[in-house]
Amino acid sequence: MPKLSIILVLILTFSTVVFAQDLQNQRRNLMPVPANIAWKNGRLAINKNFSVSLSGKTDERLKSYIFRVLRRLEGRTIFEFSREYSNSTNATLSIETQSTGNAIPKLGDDESYNLEISDKQAKLTAPTTVGAMRGLETLLQLLERDKDGFYFPAVSINDKPRFAWRGLLIDVARHFQPIEVLKRNLDAMAAVKMNVLHWHLTEDQGFRVETKKFPELHLQGSDGDFYSQDQIREIIKYAADRGIRVMPEFDMPGHATAWVVSHPEIASASGPYKIERQPGIFDPTMDPTNEKTYKLLEPFFAEMAALFPDAYMHIGGDENEGKQWAANADIQAFMKKNGLKTQDDLQQYFNRRILKFLQKNGKIMMGWDEIFQPDIPKEIVIQSWRGQEALGKVARQGNQGILSNGYYIDLMQPASDHYVVDPLPANTTLTPDEQKRVLGGEATMWSEWVSPETIDSRIWTRTAAIAERLWSPREINDIDDMYRRLDVIGLQLEELGLTHRKNQTMLLRRLANSDHIETLQNLVAIIEPVKIYQRYQVRPQSMLSPLTGLIDAAQADAPKARIFNKLVQKFTSQKNPDDAAKLKNTFTEWKNTGVQLKTLMENNPSLFEAKQLATDLTDLGEIGLEITDILQNGKTPNADWKNTKLKRLVEIAKPKAALEIQVVESMKKLVEMVSAK
Amino acid sequence: MPKLSIILVLILTFSTVVFAQDLQNQRRNLMPVPANIAWKNGRLAINKNFSVSLSGKTDERLKSYIFRVLRRLEGRTIFEFSREYSNSTNATLSIETQSTGNAIPKLGDDESYNLEISDKQAKLTAPTTVGAMRGLETLLQLLERDKDGFYFPAVSINDKPRFAWRGLLIDVARHFQPIEVLKRNLDAMAAVKMNVLHWHLTEDQGFRVETKKFPELHLQGSDGDFYSQDQIREIIKYAADRGIRVMPEFDMPGHATAWVVSHPEIASASGPYKIERQPGIFDPTMDPTNEKTYKLLEPFFAEMAALFPDAYMHIGGDENEGKQWAANADIQAFMKKNGLKTQDDLQQYFNRRILKFLQKNGKIMMGWDEIFQPDIPKEIVIQSWRGQEALGKVARQGNQGILSNGYYIDLMQPASDHYVVDPLPANTTLTPDEQKRVLGGEATMWSEWVSPETIDSRIWTRTAAIAERLWSPREINDIDDMYRRLDVIGLQLEELGLTHRKNQTMLLRRLANSDHIETLQNLVAIIEPVKIYQRYQVRPQSMLSPLTGLIDAAQADAPKARIFNKLVQKFTSQKNPDDAAKLKNTFTEWKNTGVQLKTLMENNPSLFEAKQLATDLTDLGEIGLEITDILQNGKTPNADWKNTKLKRLVEIAKPKAALEIQVVESMKKLVEMVSAK
Repeated sequence: MPKLSIILVLILTFSTVVFAQDLQNQRRNLMPVPANIAWKNGRLAINKNFSVSLSGKTDERLKSYIFRVLRRLEGRTIFEFSREYSNSTNATLSIETQSTGNAIPKLGDDESYNLEISDKQAKLTAPTTVGAMRGLETLLQLLERDKDGFYFPAVSINDKPRFAWRGLLIDVARHFQPIEVLKRNLDAMAAVKMNVLHWHLTEDQGFRVETKKFPELHLQGSDGDFYSQDQIREIIKYAADRGIRVMPEFDMPGHATAWVVSHPEIASASGPYKIERQPGIFDPTMDPTNEKTYKLLEPFFAEMAALFPDAYMHIGGDENEGKQWAANADIQAFMKKNGLKTQDDLQQYFNRRILKFLQKNGKIMMGWDEIFQPDIPKEIVIQSWRGQEALGKVARQGNQGILSNGYYIDLMQPASDHYVVDPLPANTTLTPDEQKRVLGGEATMWSEWVSPETIDSRIWTRTAAIAERLWSPREINDIDDMYRRLDVIGLQLEELGLTHRKNQTMLLRRLANSDHIETLQNLVAIIEPVKIYQRYQVRPQSMLSPLTGLIDAAQADAPKARIFNKLVQKFTSQKNPDDAAKLKNTFTEWKNTGVQLKTLMENNPSLFEAKQLATDLTDLGEIGLEITDILQNGKTPNADWKNTKLKRLVEIAKPKAALEIQVVESMKKLVEMVSAK
Repeated sequence: MPKLSIILVLILTFSTVVFAQDLQNQRRNLMPVPANIAWKNGRLAINKNFSVSLSGKTDERLKSYIFRVLRRLEGRTIFEFSREYSNSTNATLSIETQSTGNAIPKLGDDESYNLEISDKQAKLTAPTTVGAMRGLETLLQLLERDKDGFYFPAVSINDKPRFAWRGLLIDVARHFQPIEVLKRNLDAMAAVKMNVLHWHLTEDQGFRVETKKFPELHLQGSDGDFYSQDQIREIIKYAADRGIRVMPEFDMPGHATAWVVSHPEIASASGPYKIERQPGIFDPTMDPTNEKTYKLLEPFFAEMAALFPDAYMHIGGDENEGKQWAANADIQAFMKKNGLKTQDDLQQYFNRRILKFLQKNGKIMMGWDEIFQPDIPKEIVIQSWRGQEALGKVARQGNQGILSNGYYIDLMQPASDHYVVDPLPANTTLTPDEQKRVLGGEATMWSEWVSPETIDSRIWTRTAAIAERLWSPREINDIDDMYRRLDVIGLQLEELGLTHRKNQTMLLRRLANSDHIETLQNLVAIIEPVKIYQRYQVRPQSMLSPLTGLIDAAQADAPKARIFNKLVQKFTSQKNPDDAAKLKNTFTEWKNTGVQLKTLMENNPSLFEAKQLATDLTDLGEIGLEITDILQNGKTPNADWKNTKLKRLVEIAKPKAALEIQVVESMKKLVEMVSAK
C-alpha cells in the first residue's frame, strides 16, 4: 500500500505543521507560557472607555497592583482611563478574587488564576490576590495592536505554576545595589511571575544589612553601603505587594571576611581583617569551637528573624575550604575531643548550633549543597549549585531542595543553556513523592562584575527564560520561540524602569565620548563577554574597579551573532542564493565597520584594549567576501587558502579585552564548505 | 594709501580669525566657561597611578565630593585609582582649601577657585569646600583623549561666578517627582555649577510635603505622592553636599486647591474641593480676611522653617485672579472696612501677615512679581517671570530680585533663546548699586507635561546654557559654540544617571512596540513639541494622562533640524555643490523614512495621531528632490510650481499631534531660491 503510506506521511507532515503553528500561536507573546490556553474567535477592543470592576474579597495590595497595571496599559496605549472602579457587570475588565491570601506571601500560596476574554469582556478570577496579580501580568502580555487599534485576543486561560519556588538571587555584597535597583528588579520579577527574592546580604566583600545589636558589623563591613532596617522593611513590603517572598542569606562560616573586620575574635585565625576587594574564595572563617561566635550569632539571628518575615532563612555554608581550621591547633584539639573527624563534621556541628537559633525564632534553615549530610534534620532545605544529581540525593533522603545549577546568570551563557535545565527533567528517576520535594529553582545574579548601571543587562532578559522553565509545563521547550518571546518581554520590561537595553547605548557613548556609536553597536551585536569564570583570568579587576569597559556594555546572547549563525546553518544546508546575498551584505558591513572602528578605538584610550577586535572584524568581513567570491565564480580554493583562513579564524576566536566574537564557528563552516571538493 | 588699508584689513581679518579660534579653543568643553583662562603648553597624562593629595581645612563633604569625582574619572578612563590620599607633594591632583565654608550653603558663599595644570600636576586651590567642588567639575570637563591616552591640558584658570543665585525650579506638584529624580538632577546642577534648587512643593494639583502638624494637608492633597520629612532632609543634605541651597515654595494665596481639599474653611468660597487635575489658573484662593487662615499658616511656617535651613522661603503669590474674593461679600466688607481698595491691596495685607510669620522664624520672604508693590519691605526678594523691566523696577526701588522670564524651560524653546537672556544685559540702565540687587536667575521646570521618565529630557541639556549665562562673563555669547559644548556636556551628564538621552529611545521603542526605531529616530531628530502654551490647546490632557506619546519622546532643539537649517543657510548664500549633494542625500532619506514610517504608524495605534507627519516627511523629501533636480537641470520653474510647493509647505508647517517639523522655513527658502529668476 505505497499510496496509503504516502498519504499517511502527508497527513502526518501536515498535522505536524499545523501543530507547530498552533503551538507558536498558542504562545503569542506570553512568557511564561500558561499551563492551559484555548484561543477563541474574537477580540476585546481597548479604548479610552476601558473600565474595571472588582468583586469578591479584595485588599489594598490588589487595588494598588491593578492601579499600576492600568498605568502601564495607559503608557502603551496613550489612553487615559477612569480612576474609579465600575459598578457595571459589563466592565471591560472584571476581576474577582475569593480571598486576599497572605499579605506577606508564603511558600505554596495559591497563585492560580482563570482569565476569560471574549469580545465583550475580560474576566479574571482567582482564589487569591496573588493569583490575580499573576493573571494581570498575563493580561498585559496579551495586549496586541493593528490597524484597528489595541485589543486583547479572545481566549480562555487556566494557569498555575509548575513549581512553587521561582527565585532570583541578587548578590548585593560584592557590588552593592541601591534599593531602586532592587525595586525595579522586583517589578520585572513580578512581570514574569517569579516569587522569591533571595537577598545575598553578607560576603567577604561586604556586610550589607544594618544591625541594631551589632552596628559595627555593617558600619565597618560595608564602606557605608548597607540597607537600613527601614529600607529592608520597605523592600519586603514592595516585594509582598507584588506577591514576592524575600529570603535573606547570611553566608557562614566561610565567606565571612566582612563579619570579622569588626569581630576578629570570632574568626578561626587572628586578625586584623580588612574588607576583601578581590573575587574568589578566601580563608577567613568563623570559629565554630569558640562560644564567642555563638554569643554573636544567637542575638544576630534573633534580630534578623524579627526583621525578615519569611519562614526561610539561608545560612549559605558554601565553599568553606577550612584552611583556617586546619591551621588552628585549638580547633584541631576541639575536633579530636568531640569526635569530629573531618572539616565537614565540624561544619555540621556549627550548622546544628545555628539551626537551634533559627528554630527558636520559628525559621526554617536553608543552605547550599555543602550543608547537606546524610543525617541532617529533614526540615533543612538545600539549594543546589551542584546539579540535579545532588538535588536528587537530597530529595531521596527526604529533604526539600531547589536547583540553581544551570541558572548562574552571572556566567554570561546564552538563555538557551538555562532554558533546557529542568529541576525535574523528563527522565528523572525520582518517585512522585521525592519529586514533590524539589520545590523549584533560582537564578543567581552573583555580583562580582555588575554595577547598578549594568546589573539589569545581566539579569534581563535571559532570566525570563528561567522564569518560564519554573512556571510553565515541561513540554514548553521550543528554543527559537523562547528567544522570540524573550525579545518582546525584554521590550515590555523597559516600562518598569529596567535599564537592560537603554544603558548599553549610554555605556557605549561614554566609551566613544560621542553620540556616534553605530560602529560600536554593530560590534557589540556580535560579541559577548567571556563565559564561566574566564573574565577575571583574562582581565583581572577588583571589586573597586570601574565596570564601564566594552565588556560591561556587551551582553550575553549577542543578537546579530545568533541571526548570522542561523543564516549560515540554513545556507550551508540549503544553499539559497538569497541567503548568499544576505551573507555578502553582512561581510561588507563587517569590513566597513571594522575600518571605522579602528579609527574610533585608536583615539579612545578606554577602547585601546579592544583595538584588535576592529581588525578581526575587518578580517572576518574580508574572509567572508572571499568566500562569497568563491561561491560566485565556483572555483574550489586550494588547501593553502583553507589552512590560512582557518588559522586566522583560530586567532580571531581568541578573546580580546575578555570579549569573544560569536560568529567564528560559522565562518569556519563556510570555509570548510567552499573548500570541499 | 590703498595698499596700507588692504594690509590693515588683512591684518584685522587675520587677527579676527585667530581670535575666534582662540576663543573656541579657550572654551574647549568647559561649560560654564570660567571667568579667566590661560592655556599653556603641555599636558598632564592620566594613568592608573593618578593620585590625590588634600591639604588645608577640609571636611567630609569635600572628601565625599572628591570620591565621587574620582569614580567618574575612573568610569571614563576605566582605570582603577588608589583610594588612599597621597602624602606626596607630587600627587597628580593636589587640592588645598582654606576653609570648609558653610556646611549648609548660603547665598553669597565664596565659590571661587584656582586651577593650575602643568605637565607635572594639577593644583586646585579654593577658599572654601564649595569653591573646590566647582573646580573639580571644571577639572572633569577638562579631560581629553587622543592616541597617546587621557590627559588634562596645561592651563591656568581663575574662576568665580558672575551671579550668586543660579537656580533651577522643579515643580513637583503638578507631576510628582520621586527623590531619585531630584538627586540625579542635583548632580547635574552641580556639574554645571548651579547652586539653588527651588522646590515648588504646593499647587492646585498637589501638596507634596509632609507636615506633622497638619497631616491632612499632604494626606488628602497628594494622592499619596509626597515627600516625608526624612526625605526632605535627605534631599537638603544631598544638595548641601554638592554646594546647592534648597529653597521651598509654598504658593499662596492662589494656586491653593490642594490646601483647601482638607481645609475648605480657609478658602474664600465654600467647598468641598478636590485635587485639581487640569492645567491652568484656578479659583480656589485662601481667605486673607479669615483668622483661621493664619491659625493654619503660622504653625505651618514655623514647622517648615525648622525643616528647611535656607534663609529664603518662597510664598509664590502669583496668578491670583481674585475671583473668589470678588464674589465673597464678607471679604468685600473686610476690604472696605480696612481701606483695602484693590485685590492687590488685599494680597499685600495677606503678604504682610505672612511676612511676620517668616520673620519670626528668621526667614527672608521671596515671591513672584505679583507680590512686588511700591511700599513692600526692602528685605523681600522678587522672582520675576515678567522680565528685565519688571526686575529693573524692583532693583530701583531697593529690593533684590532674580530673573526667570526667558528661562522657562517647560515652554520647549531652543537653548539659544534662553542663552541670549541676560539678567543684566550690556545696555542695562541700572546703576552699579542697583545692579548688585539683581542676584541672578532661575530656570523653571514647570511640570504640567513631564513625568519622571521625561523630565530630564526637558531640563538637560538646555539648562546648561542658562547655567552658563548665570556663571560666565556676559561676553561669553557665541551660540554655535554654546551648542557644541552643550552636546559634550549632555553626554557627560549621562554618567550621573540622567536619562535625557537614553529615555528617548526607550519611549520610541514602547511606541513602536519594537527595537527597530530608526525611522522614528530620524523623524524625532527634526520635529519638536509645539512651544509656549500651545500643547494643551492642540492636544489637551490632564495631570492623570500618560506622558508616553510621540510628543513626550520629542525634545526641544531637534538636532538634525538645526544641522539642516544651517546647511540651507550656507547653501543659499554660497551654492556649494558639495552642500547640494548633502541636501539631496537628506531629501532621499526623508522620502524613504516617510514611506516606512507610514506603515509603522498605521500599525501602531499609539502613533495614529502622528500619521500625517509620515506623509509630510515623504512630501518634504519629494519637494526637496524636485529642488535638487531643478538645481541640476538649471531650469527655473514657473510660478504655479512655486505656489503649489509653498502652499504644501504651509500645510506641513502646521502642528500634528502637537509636533512641528522644524525644517519647513528652510524648505521655503529653497523653493524661493530656485524660483527666483
